[in-house]
Formats: sequence, C-alpha cells, structure tokens
Amino acid sequence: MGKLLFNITMTLDGYVAGPNPTINDPLGEGGEAIHDWVVKLKSWQESHGMSGDGETGPSDDVVRETVANLGATIMGRNMFGGGPGPWGAEPWQGWWGDNPPFHTPVFVLTHHPRSPLVMQGGTTFYFVTDGIESALRQAQKAAGDRDVMIAGGAATAQQFLSAGLIDEMEIHLVPQLLGGGSRLFEDLGQSVPRIDLVRTIPTADVTHLKYRIHK
Amino acid sequence: MGKLLFNITMTLDGYVAGPNPTINDPLGEGGEAIHDWVVKLKSWQESHGMSGDGETGPSDDVVRETVANLGATIMGRNMFGGGPGPWGAEPWQGWWGDNPPFHTPVFVLTHHPRSPLVMQGGTTFYFVTDGIESALRQAQKAAGDRDVMIAGGAATAQQFLSAGLIDEMEIHLVPQLLGGGSRLFEDLGQSVPRIDLVRTIPTADVTHLKYRIHK
Repeated sequence: MGKLLFNITMTLDGYVAGPNPTINDPLGEGGEAIHDWVVKLKSWQESHGMSGDGETGPSDDVVRETVANLGATIMGRNMFGGGPGPWGAEPWQGWWGDNPPFHTPVFVLTHHPRSPLVMQGGTTFYFVTDGIESALRQAQKAAGDRDVMIAGGAATAQQFLSAGLIDEMEIHLVPQLLGGGSRLFEDLGQSVPRIDLVRTIPTADVTHLKYRIHK
Repeated sequence: MGKLLFNITMTLDGYVAGPNPTINDPLGEGGEAIHDWVVKLKSWQESHGMSGDGETGPSDDVVRETVANLGATIMGRNMFGGGPGPWGAEPWQGWWGDNPPFHTPVFVLTHHPRSPLVMQGGTTFYFVTDGIESALRQAQKAAGDRDVMIAGGAATAQQFLSAGLIDEMEIHLVPQLLGGGSRLFEDLGQSVPRIDLVRTIPTADVTHLKYRIHK
C-alpha cells in the first residue's frame, strides 16, 4: 500500500484560500495569487493539458515528484465544484473541465449520492457519502501500491489530519499575507499530531516544506 | 537611522506561544518547546550569561547576525514581566534576572508610568505610556545608526505590523503544531502588508525565513 499524502499552498499567515469565496471565485479574494508559483511550471501546465513550455527547476521537480507515484485522489465536494446541491437533472461536472488535471480516480466527499462521472485523461469522479475512512479505503483499493493524495480543501484536510490518517504533508509556503480566508490549521481540537521536518527546498517565491506525521 | 526589525519563533500552525499562559509559565502549554532550537545555541547562551559552549552553525549565525547591529529593543509589558499591575512599592523587575539578555536600552509598552530600571550588562528598561510610535521614536534615538528590534510578544508585533512600521521580519518556523495559543498573524484587519522573501536558511529543526515588508 502506498502513502497517504497531502500537499497545499499556504500563505505565511496560514491561509489556503482568501475571504469571501463565491461560485465564480472559489479561492476567494487574493486566493488565486497564492498559486502563482505553480501555474507557471512545466509540470503543472502539462497536467492541465497546456503546451508545457513552462518553467523547470526545483519547484517543478517537487510537483513532478508528488504526482509520480500517485494512484488515487480524494477531495471535498467544494473542491470538486461548489454551489448548490444536490446534483440536479443535468448535473454539474465540477470546476475541472473535460480533461481534469488529476489523471487518477478521484473520490469526492459529499452528502449527495451520485453515479461515477468518467472524464477524459484518466480522471473518474466517484462520490462517497459514508465518510473519510470509507473514501480512504476506496482510494487505497483503487491506488494499489501507489500513493493516495488529499487534494483539499482545508476542511477535508483537517478531517484527515485530526483522524491521524495522513503519512506525509508538504506545505508550499508563499511569501504573502492574506489577513483572512480559510486557515489550514484550524479546528484541529485536541488531535494535534507530532510532525517531523523531512526536507526543505527553498526557492525565491515558495518554500517547500515536507513533514512526516506521527501516528 | 537603522532598521526596525522583528523576529520570532512560530509553529507551522502559526502560534508563537501555547494556550493558557500563567505568570509562572508565560509561554503557555507547549510554548517553551518551540524555542528548543535557540536555547542550545552558543550565541544564545552567551547573551544569557552562560558558559557559551553551545552549538554553532547556520542557526547560530542567524542569531548572531540579528543582534550584531542592535541598538535598542522594544517589547510589550507582558514580555517584560506579566502579572498584576501597577508596579507597587517594591517593583517587580521582570522575568529576565539581574543581567537581562538584551544588552541594549529596552522600551516597554505599558499603561503604568515607572522610572527607568537600570540592570546589569547594558540593559535599561524604559517604560513608555504614550504608544508605539513614541516608543519607536525613543528607541531610534537611543539606537542612533543601529537597528531597533521588536522583541514581542505577538500583540505588540501585530500593532507595529498593522501600523506599517517594521522594515524586516524574520520568522523562525519550527516543525511543530500547537493547536492553540497566541497566533502571530491575527487581528491584522485591513492592514495587511505586502512582503518579499529575502532569504531562506533551512536547517534540520528550524527554517529561517527573512522578509522585507513594503511600506
């Protein structure tokens, strides 16, 4: 069985999305800019079906390494595609277009049952209504020996962190302050895990910090 | 005139002190452990009047660099020494012993007037009752061409950040989660400055991140 991984971009003041998200602006005010470091990378552009003449270098290597052994993805319903539920007669197919950038089975946590949604490029969305542990079991079965990735958002990551299920977490720390929005480390309650710093990769516009999480 | 500097140790979840601080445990639960990286350093031990056979290396260099050009220090009243005020007939001389580790004039923000308190080793505490800008003016005058350091705590740093007064900020990010306590980046309101990452010094147990703050 592979590892359960989680990685996310976070501002110095701890935010992973800006304030006042809307259906047209799901990352909130200022939330898109925190991902500027990744959007310009060759690996990111390739996974998003773009021509891929983006930047290479240490950050590109980090992104490439993350997805190299990926077998399945888990995300919250808002990350699949927020907005009013349930799915309706002509269902919303999410934010991600016809060829989503995941290229694996994706297990979406939701309260609303729905049949699997097969997209182009290897992504199939499966909708899981019985909680995070069920989603993890299904994802691990689909992934086989490969890793499973928690793609986000913050609330989903918090649930997996609090439950002590994540093996490795990589924080892409960007030199920005948002002053409001969704905090990654919030509502962990008494379930605060011990973490070890595994490696640091410094670059001019983002610091990649990988942690092992004690169980 | 020198720069206005601020540096502090922060956990990955953004805390600079643990929950439930008391007069005997001013850093709160778990708050002392976040400073483990600095207490073992040669420079820290020397400034605290210890024999100084502590560790050298990149973190020691960072600490040494910070204090090399220091001319004055500013801190909040709780950092000088918390507890009930005003000062009383036989005044409390703070947490810091007869020979405090600052070795500069220290300007303490407080609501309670008090005469200056001359300690050993170059530290004199001056008590400033008319706000942060007055404290900064007095500190800069005392420092001359040298730098002024905001020593903390979080609330004091937030006031100077919100007022756009800090030139450079160094965050010593430690691989720990506290789950509660005092957050550094809280209550910044609308006054969220732009920051640039100046340098990153990665080590095994702390990541030194220095930022320039736009004014």
